[in-house]
Amino acid sequence: MNARLTVATNQTSRVKIVVIGAGFAGLAAVRALRNSNADITLVDRNNHHLFQPFLFQVATSILEPAEIATPIRSLLQEMPNVRVEMREATRIDLSRRVVVMNEGGNLAYDILVVATGAQTSYFGREAEWAPHALGLKSLGDAITARNRLLKAFERAELEPDRRKQARDMTVVVVGGGPTGVAITGTISEFIRRTLASDFRNIDLGKARVVLVQSGSKLLPAFSEQHSAYAARALEDQGVEVKLGVPVTHVDATGVVVGDEHIAAATVLWCTGVQGVALARTLGAHVKPDGTVAVLNDLSVPGHPECFVIGDAAHVIGPDGRPMPGLASVAQDQGRYVGRLIAARLANTAHSKPYESFTPSKLATISRHVGVAEFRGRSIIGFPAWLLWGLLHLRILSGGGHARLSILGNWVRLLTTYRRSGRLIVEPSELGAGRGGYAPAINEIAEDTAIWRR
Amino acid sequence: MNARLTVATNQTSRVKIVVIGAGFAGLAAVRALRNSNADITLVDRNNHHLFQPFLFQVATSILEPAEIATPIRSLLQEMPNVRVEMREATRIDLSRRVVVMNEGGNLAYDILVVATGAQTSYFGREAEWAPHALGLKSLGDAITARNRLLKAFERAELEPDRRKQARDMTVVVVGGGPTGVAITGTISEFIRRTLASDFRNIDLGKARVVLVQSGSKLLPAFSEQHSAYAARALEDQGVEVKLGVPVTHVDATGVVVGDEHIAAATVLWCTGVQGVALARTLGAHVKPDGTVAVLNDLSVPGHPECFVIGDAAHVIGPDGRPMPGLASVAQDQGRYVGRLIAARLANTAHSKPYESFTPSKLATISRHVGVAEFRGRSIIGFPAWLLWGLLHLRILSGGGHARLSILGNWVRLLTTYRRSGRLIVEPSELGAGRGGYAPAINEIAEDTAIWRR
Repeated sequence: MNARLTVATNQTSRVKIVVIGAGFAGLAAVRALRNSNADITLVDRNNHHLFQPFLFQVATSILEPAEIATPIRSLLQEMPNVRVEMREATRIDLSRRVVVMNEGGNLAYDILVVATGAQTSYFGREAEWAPHALGLKSLGDAITARNRLLKAFERAELEPDRRKQARDMTVVVVGGGPTGVAITGTISEFIRRTLASDFRNIDLGKARVVLVQSGSKLLPAFSEQHSAYAARALEDQGVEVKLGVPVTHVDATGVVVGDEHIAAATVLWCTGVQGVALARTLGAHVKPDGTVAVLNDLSVPGHPECFVIGDAAHVIGPDGRPMPGLASVAQDQGRYVGRLIAARLANTAHSKPYESFTPSKLATISRHVGVAEFRGRSIIGFPAWLLWGLLHLRILSGGGHARLSILGNWVRLLTTYRRSGRLIVEPSELGAGRGGYAPAINEIAEDTAIWRR
Repeated sequence: MNARLTVATNQTSRVKIVVIGAGFAGLAAVRALRNSNADITLVDRNNHHLFQPFLFQVATSILEPAEIATPIRSLLQEMPNVRVEMREATRIDLSRRVVVMNEGGNLAYDILVVATGAQTSYFGREAEWAPHALGLKSLGDAITARNRLLKAFERAELEPDRRKQARDMTVVVVGGGPTGVAITGTISEFIRRTLASDFRNIDLGKARVVLVQSGSKLLPAFSEQHSAYAARALEDQGVEVKLGVPVTHVDATGVVVGDEHIAAATVLWCTGVQGVALARTLGAHVKPDGTVAVLNDLSVPGHPECFVIGDAAHVIGPDGRPMPGLASVAQDQGRYVGRLIAARLANTAHSKPYESFTPSKLATISRHVGVAEFRGRSIIGFPAWLLWGLLHLRILSGGGHARLSILGNWVRLLTTYRRSGRLIVEPSELGAGRGGYAPAINEIAEDTAIWRR
């Protein structure tokens, strides 16, 4: 155990709260503890809170990383009782009340909040499929997706072999949920409108954008009408929508959908999430998908001092099904647990169980079209897109500057199809500043370029 | 040779111009050929034109990549006679008039413009020093520098060992020219102002920022008065300025300056440039520093069809010394050569030799202080900073949107010390979308993290 921390706990009699994960859930929990008399440690492997709902817009060059992510430290500057630690936890030891870290001292707690979120699931084929089918969960993923997409078209422009050229000009998105629909529509628009006038050799009208959905309709959580509208809107933009066919294989050449091999240089994986590995170390009560079944106060059975919230938690909603992985749900659960802990610390009665709710459903299809089920009403087209944009901008953490910046980019896109940063940026090799044009040494990184670890 | 290109050349009788490098020089040359009746191919290994003078502001989280870089294709959309190719040249064959590429077909030319720029020089110690002392020439370099700096302070916050903590909190900048001075002042301000209120454990006032200059004064090209002012301004900000001491060793622990070992987690290398390897393949007339000696029309002796311009060229200025590596110089040479070629193509007389000039000298020291020698006048302090900012904004390629965005960030920095994006962003490993908090698998990349190739 970390000597410093033990000392600190002995010196002060303040309760030690550890929150793992600075997503919507973890941040809301910490903020609800604003006035509590406790030492709070917020641990995250990144130094920023990420506004995941806009991640697909970074992947498609509409927004920049700084517009959708904020340093965790700057979000919590006003809370002197919060320590932020950028590091990784490997295991939770419930009996000893210790979070085991991958380096440095471990972290002892009196109360633990696990808000570790979800990660992409490849249904057991991660090792084979993940290198070729990019998931979209972090800023790094979004930048990698952007680089891959842009490099594929740069290659196509130079490629004399028609077959290889066609592969470079094909994008397959797997998964017809809100993320898959949003990114497919945006990519199709990006290729056919923004990139169209950039190239001399290739005809961007011939680019293929394919959306593959194993279920029988897009946006499964939405009404039939909305699903049909989304499919039509995508097809109007030239997207091939394939319903009711599962992906059976993914490799460097593309994907196999049912019996059909689709040669594609860019494959995005927007289906399947699972709880992250850390939550699985909670042992019992972990569902097969890695989420953790919790009691009605969101604590782990037998451990009233350990809460699991957000995408990591398995919480049944009013409709009898698990609550969806939405920002609004995560924030609501974080606030609930934060207030519950604050009340316990203040010895105030608070035994109200968590009340699940049915969140509004919002999906964007392209730069100006969406569908929504909002307060019982069905909304379609531009009003739904506008609602999606405004409701999300409202909960963005970056403050007025980021909101203004995003609005500016959207208005520009709506009026001109221009996008700010379709840049291919890759961290430099070996730290050498080789500017200008440095031939031969620094090859264009291949699709599979990854960080050496 | 590339079959397609040969066919294309046979089919059309248009002159084939190849420009290598889309920096200030190459872009100016291409633009000057706007109305020419020639097929122009612009080759660059990046897909963007980079505004290098602002690169240090990306490294220090003031600006974002999209604000200082523009896709080459979008800059040249209006010129249908220009093809942009994102790929790498390895060799120039002057006798066969062919640019040899690292992949795909080679590129035959009738007229060649080499605008390959400069890269960081480690005075023959590249293999040993470059991994530890980061140069600043590309967007990738700037992002890597930003990541390293931010990660060092995140580590320091967690580090119980005082000696290691002090190393993490030390930054050494090697080189006291305009880039070294600008980045040192900006980093010191960044640490002491922007980051100061972020951390709980470490006292940012104890961070060390050291500027090492082997010569006897900072800003060697400036007057004594300006050099002294820069040193004083930096020292007022808590920078240790070391003059007249060479760096004799660099490794993972830090640098050796004269006889003193300075333990430092972040070392930036802002001294020494050399022409890139491609220019060296021009054979004769290559200077030891890799730049190419040219005739007074900027062509290579014996090859009136091959021009070398910008940082890659060795051109003597009015003061008898090589012209400095500035945007204004590169643009001027690019324009000259572009017009010369256009006149030759139109069979117009144009034998005027290139007229070198003495460019204005501008240096920024911190977010509101600079020194300048502008049209024979000496300017110091805020007016010099303002002049630096406005003159550079004027030549920025990104258009009104980027200018406005940069101005907004500067005003915010001037008034609040806030910076937009102090984010640590690294491309994802293996393409797997592991969101939320994914422990153990994805370690915080080490300092030495590089792309696997």
